[in-house]
Amino acid sequence: MSVERRVEELLDRMALTEKAAQLGSVNADKLLDGDGNLDENAVEEHLSDGIGHLTRIGGEGSLPPTEAARVTNELQTYLREETRLGIPAIPHEECLSGYMGPEGTTFPQSIGLASTWDPSLVEEITGTIRTQLEAIGTAHALSPVLDVARDLRWGRVEETFGEDPYLVASMACGYVDGLQGDGDGISATLKHFAGHSVGEGGKNRSSVNLGRRELRETHLFPFEAAVRTSDAESVMNAYHDIDGIPCASDEWLLTDVLRGEWGFDGTVVSDYYSVEFLRSEHGVAADEEEAGAMALEAGIDVELPYTDCYGDSLVKGVESGHLSEETVDHAVRRVLRAKVRKGLFDDPTVDPDAASEPFGTDAADELTTRAARESMTLLKNEGDLLPLAGSETDSVAVIGPKADDGQELMGDYAYAAHYPEEEVELDATTPLDAIRSRGDEFGFEVSHEQGCTMTGPGTGGFDAAASAAAEADVAVAFVGARSAVDLSDMDKEQENRSTVPTSGEGCDVVDLDLPGVQQELVERVDQTGTPLVVVVVSGKPHSIEAISEAVPAVVQAWLPGERGGEGIAATLFGEHNPGGHLPVSIPRTVGQIPVHYSRKPNSANEDHVYVDSDPLYPFGHGLSYTDFEYGDLALSDDEIPPAGTITAAVTVENAGERAGHDVVQLYVRAENPSQARPVQELVGFERVSLDAGDARRVSFEIDASQLAYHDRNFDLTVEEGPYQLRVGHSASDIVTTASFEVTGTKRVPSTGRTYFTKTRITDAE
Amino acid sequence: MSVERRVEELLDRMALTEKAAQLGSVNADKLLDGDGNLDENAVEEHLSDGIGHLTRIGGEGSLPPTEAARVTNELQTYLREETRLGIPAIPHEECLSGYMGPEGTTFPQSIGLASTWDPSLVEEITGTIRTQLEAIGTAHALSPVLDVARDLRWGRVEETFGEDPYLVASMACGYVDGLQGDGDGISATLKHFAGHSVGEGGKNRSSVNLGRRELRETHLFPFEAAVRTSDAESVMNAYHDIDGIPCASDEWLLTDVLRGEWGFDGTVVSDYYSVEFLRSEHGVAADEEEAGAMALEAGIDVELPYTDCYGDSLVKGVESGHLSEETVDHAVRRVLRAKVRKGLFDDPTVDPDAASEPFGTDAADELTTRAARESMTLLKNEGDLLPLAGSETDSVAVIGPKADDGQELMGDYAYAAHYPEEEVELDATTPLDAIRSRGDEFGFEVSHEQGCTMTGPGTGGFDAAASAAAEADVAVAFVGARSAVDLSDMDKEQENRSTVPTSGEGCDVVDLDLPGVQQELVERVDQTGTPLVVVVVSGKPHSIEAISEAVPAVVQAWLPGERGGEGIAATLFGEHNPGGHLPVSIPRTVGQIPVHYSRKPNSANEDHVYVDSDPLYPFGHGLSYTDFEYGDLALSDDEIPPAGTITAAVTVENAGERAGHDVVQLYVRAENPSQARPVQELVGFERVSLDAGDARRVSFEIDASQLAYHDRNFDLTVEEGPYQLRVGHSASDIVTTASFEVTGTKRVPSTGRTYFTKTRITDAE
Repeated sequence: MSVERRVEELLDRMALTEKAAQLGSVNADKLLDGDGNLDENAVEEHLSDGIGHLTRIGGEGSLPPTEAARVTNELQTYLREETRLGIPAIPHEECLSGYMGPEGTTFPQSIGLASTWDPSLVEEITGTIRTQLEAIGTAHALSPVLDVARDLRWGRVEETFGEDPYLVASMACGYVDGLQGDGDGISATLKHFAGHSVGEGGKNRSSVNLGRRELRETHLFPFEAAVRTSDAESVMNAYHDIDGIPCASDEWLLTDVLRGEWGFDGTVVSDYYSVEFLRSEHGVAADEEEAGAMALEAGIDVELPYTDCYGDSLVKGVESGHLSEETVDHAVRRVLRAKVRKGLFDDPTVDPDAASEPFGTDAADELTTRAARESMTLLKNEGDLLPLAGSETDSVAVIGPKADDGQELMGDYAYAAHYPEEEVELDATTPLDAIRSRGDEFGFEVSHEQGCTMTGPGTGGFDAAASAAAEADVAVAFVGARSAVDLSDMDKEQENRSTVPTSGEGCDVVDLDLPGVQQELVERVDQTGTPLVVVVVSGKPHSIEAISEAVPAVVQAWLPGERGGEGIAATLFGEHNPGGHLPVSIPRTVGQIPVHYSRKPNSANEDHVYVDSDPLYPFGHGLSYTDFEYGDLALSDDEIPPAGTITAAVTVENAGERAGHDVVQLYVRAENPSQARPVQELVGFERVSLDAGDARRVSFEIDASQLAYHDRNFDLTVEEGPYQLRVGHSASDIVTTASFEVTGTKRVPSTGRTYFTKTRITDAE
Repeated sequence: MSVERRVEELLDRMALTEKAAQLGSVNADKLLDGDGNLDENAVEEHLSDGIGHLTRIGGEGSLPPTEAARVTNELQTYLREETRLGIPAIPHEECLSGYMGPEGTTFPQSIGLASTWDPSLVEEITGTIRTQLEAIGTAHALSPVLDVARDLRWGRVEETFGEDPYLVASMACGYVDGLQGDGDGISATLKHFAGHSVGEGGKNRSSVNLGRRELRETHLFPFEAAVRTSDAESVMNAYHDIDGIPCASDEWLLTDVLRGEWGFDGTVVSDYYSVEFLRSEHGVAADEEEAGAMALEAGIDVELPYTDCYGDSLVKGVESGHLSEETVDHAVRRVLRAKVRKGLFDDPTVDPDAASEPFGTDAADELTTRAARESMTLLKNEGDLLPLAGSETDSVAVIGPKADDGQELMGDYAYAAHYPEEEVELDATTPLDAIRSRGDEFGFEVSHEQGCTMTGPGTGGFDAAASAAAEADVAVAFVGARSAVDLSDMDKEQENRSTVPTSGEGCDVVDLDLPGVQQELVERVDQTGTPLVVVVVSGKPHSIEAISEAVPAVVQAWLPGERGGEGIAATLFGEHNPGGHLPVSIPRTVGQIPVHYSRKPNSANEDHVYVDSDPLYPFGHGLSYTDFEYGDLALSDDEIPPAGTITAAVTVENAGERAGHDVVQLYVRAENPSQARPVQELVGFERVSLDAGDARRVSFEIDASQLAYHDRNFDLTVEEGPYQLRVGHSASDIVTTASFEVTGTKRVPSTGRTYFTKTRITDAE
């Protein structure tokens, strides 16, 4: 029987209350008692009409894999066997940098993954995440984040793949492909739809002021690409309003664009509580019934995390005539379709005895270690201080509040970072652990002084830190910001705590300084004269201009996950040659933002008093222990029609003395557009690993539709005129360019858009 | 003969080159030799085909009034008598806070005028400015600024009337009414059209990201109100692009909205160089010819400051068929119409012997003194430290870099502030002058120590400043920021200067701190224990949270003009009871922005880590030496139809012991709108002067169209539902509220909009 027929047959049999139930969810803490067992009365109360989703059974329930599988099975069995229609639920979990539940492997946070510029690595990671989620019976995951980071005050910058729509789209598609497989995996949820990264004040739920061209070209592009090319199965709305219209009630966005223009046929789920916020925050709904109807009519199929404004309120809405049952049916069809496609009707249960198998494997461990290494981004390396020669070093002083705390390596939405270490088994390698193991190997001494806390004002540890540094051959200072609120600690006064989260959701900041007295600590340690490496372990760029000028070496380590310490140490000691490149420009100070590389010329070239317009470190920047050179940039044509393609090829050579990883970056600039356009835009990239002395030819095939933008009527159009292709080591370090003409102007048909450049690596001639 | 007939007859006789000439301008330095005399060859070169405007003969030419009148006369006489068609020019000048030329009276900068909440005062001021401009033969002025200040990094915040569209519109209409009179005065130019205040990064020419609803409701409202209710005769485009479309090529904005929707029939002039920027900055034009055609077709009639992309380029455009002569004709008609209406064809000359009469008058002096007083805004007055009792004071220490420099009292576009004091006769009363005169009167001693420079790092003067404070009964510290670049000094390295402008056009900043070491100076002086008054003399809010917490009294004096010292001293010593109220919220730190009071609830209520969402001082805040109380708020109805009116009346009483000035502020809040709306919006205000113990009844008649906003189709619509009217001392200090219902939803016809609330003051019952 076809999917559609099964859906229609089911729908025909459903009472209104049963339909409404399919559009809601229930979360674990409503269904479980204190021991993690099902509360039968609660199950009866919440599930007797069926349910759309089950919210975070394992993650919110803090159930180990076997238990999560067992509980999920019991709930699904209840739904299959005890409810009238026997419709299973879609169990969903969070998994941004790994399954957010007990024993889930924690990979580097998204901003670190983006620094690898390696979508295939991300695909491999989410393939692993998929096995863990599948083992516990999950069908749906609330990631990835496709927001394009532009306001760095925002706490969720760490959850993004950076500032560039093309890079975000590339990494996001890798993410979705790994998670969903060929449609038989876990449904990915693209979020937050849309423009969530640019709330005014850099705040998480604040109003977004955007024109529709900027909205489409910067913020919608990754979503469109992931819907069109990776068949993403779910989308989540955002909290804010855009120009007064809350995303949760924005039919244009959720239906006209997403479904109408892009042909999306999956489910739209609400960001947690965002339907209710239509009433309580935006004030556009008078009550739950109105909020529910408004969201459903706009295009939100499922209310998460639990049924509040849907469910009974939808039933009331239909019964009172305020809401059409047809609208309900549309959403129910989508939910049922997802359940049929996902095979949940066949058997929604899993084998609890096998549930723990994909957890804690050597393969997962190796993968997160490799990802940590690849995310390491070397910002400065004066006098080749790095890599440190383990065999020629007598002593290393390890300093700073980020040196020896496993949770500090993890981002928001990493399960183990959200609970006190005594409550959650934390399997993490800290930088200190990893440096000590090298000390043991090479026979150098490792001293350790924290120096200060993350956010506290105390400088009482400075003297000891400075002494340790003074006595060592080299000092390494681990500084940064805390992400991931300790959920058990949320009620305590932030002011009294030495570690206040200044990154992660809800932790938006007014400056980009290193919190607390960390900058002073670095300055104090630097004054000892001992060569100092600063490692920034943080989910967002910090305004480290003074530090960066003072010290010889700076590594941006992001939030590198449970094997982050290993990735950092391997980089410091040269076992790994760093190849990470910034997915986001690092500003000099908060007041300079935005500083993303793709500003229009009037913004990109205009300075502030005292502070020039360029960032401290540009997008795409990342040093290596070897040198890469580009040459022989050649185009296949010097002109192309507006529906043609052009191929650019460039030779990349490892001109240094050791193997390394480069990212060849290709930018395009419209030389005489009819509108103000970015000074350049990333249009392709390729990560290349090369032995010393080796060279490769990298070819980029660009479709003319990739040059298109939205004309005054908002039609996507390729415009005739001169264009320039630009190859460089970063957005600010363009090495070679070539020009071509597009010979005509042509509207891009809605299904005729190419999102990604085809790249090919061949031997250099 | 009717205006239209005269215009058409002229147009029929004009050659294309003569038409193009009417759309350009020429500036003084191209026409004058070093002695301020006409260069006959230059005149022949630039004016033989006629000319549209003459750019800043007196101001840029630095000609005293008599000379400016003489030169203007000579140029007009040449045009009338020596050119084929005898068409006079429109001489224009800058006059933001007074005629920007020699001897022009300098009034408080706009942000200070806005603090008076007194449109009639502004009308009186521009009435005076008008007499000075008329005396030298000027016909057109390039002000006022109607931009709505939202990003306080922007240097031009000082040029605005603050953060609120209603307040901006009210002050702007007063400005236009005074300048234009009944159409027989000086043409006012509304600028910068539109959204100029929110360039990304707070930068002057950077891209603006705005949806059209926010654009219309915040940024276009003042323009629409001034076009519709004050018949403003000219509009100037802005530099930036909005969502990719440069304003200079935005036909939707300059023609469809401005002329089509609002019925504007005056001239649109280009911001200086902005037509050329279409080529050199935005890159949307390949050459001058394309830039000129693009701007003209969008709706810019006259290119300023001189003919660059218009003139010959327009002629070439028509001759090559790229530009229609009809488009040229449309613009020429508008310019000719303005010249006819202005009476320039009758006699464009003035009496040079009478030219200096309106300058330096006692009346102008009294008016700028009164304006300075009324702009004083008392932010804090702990323990009633102020007013100082002159007769009970033995000694006052005057501290700070803003205490004794007349130029430091002036804003950007104030002529006398832009040249070295030795070159320009500066008739200004500094705070030190004014305090010394009180010292002489009352017999107290006045010591003076600058302490530090405005922006330099030197703290060498701190000891002397602290000593002076320690020895005095009271200390007054004058701190702030420099506006107005010294034009003779622009080439010098800013870094080497102790006074770097951090306010004014092109001086956009990355933080709102007091520049240099001024905060440290205040802290040092405060440590002496001598009661300390801090007076901030500055064109923008500074992040003075630490100072504000430490010291007992803070006065925001803005840039109060040439009698600013008098206004400040009169306030400090209680000769004037301050009645200024903030036209802009003062944030706690730059990273907090935006903090304007009218954010939507999701923005207004969301905090940053460590920093709550509320500003340091809210919009509308301003203390007095007396106390005002509100009571008996009554509405005429509890419901109104969507085309009705409602009247709110409230009693304001001076409950203190001395006469003073209050501003009754009326806000409205939509309780259940269909879109996210501001938490409240200013919908009326009235400045009331009351003797101690007196009371008045203030009535506000609000038209339902004032409640309207733009629906999803961008139609301006009054929406049914509950609304609340709110009366308070500031946006954060609402004292009394009353609710009513609008009983239906109705689109507002384009000519049926009411912009301003009718207020009436009667005796209290």
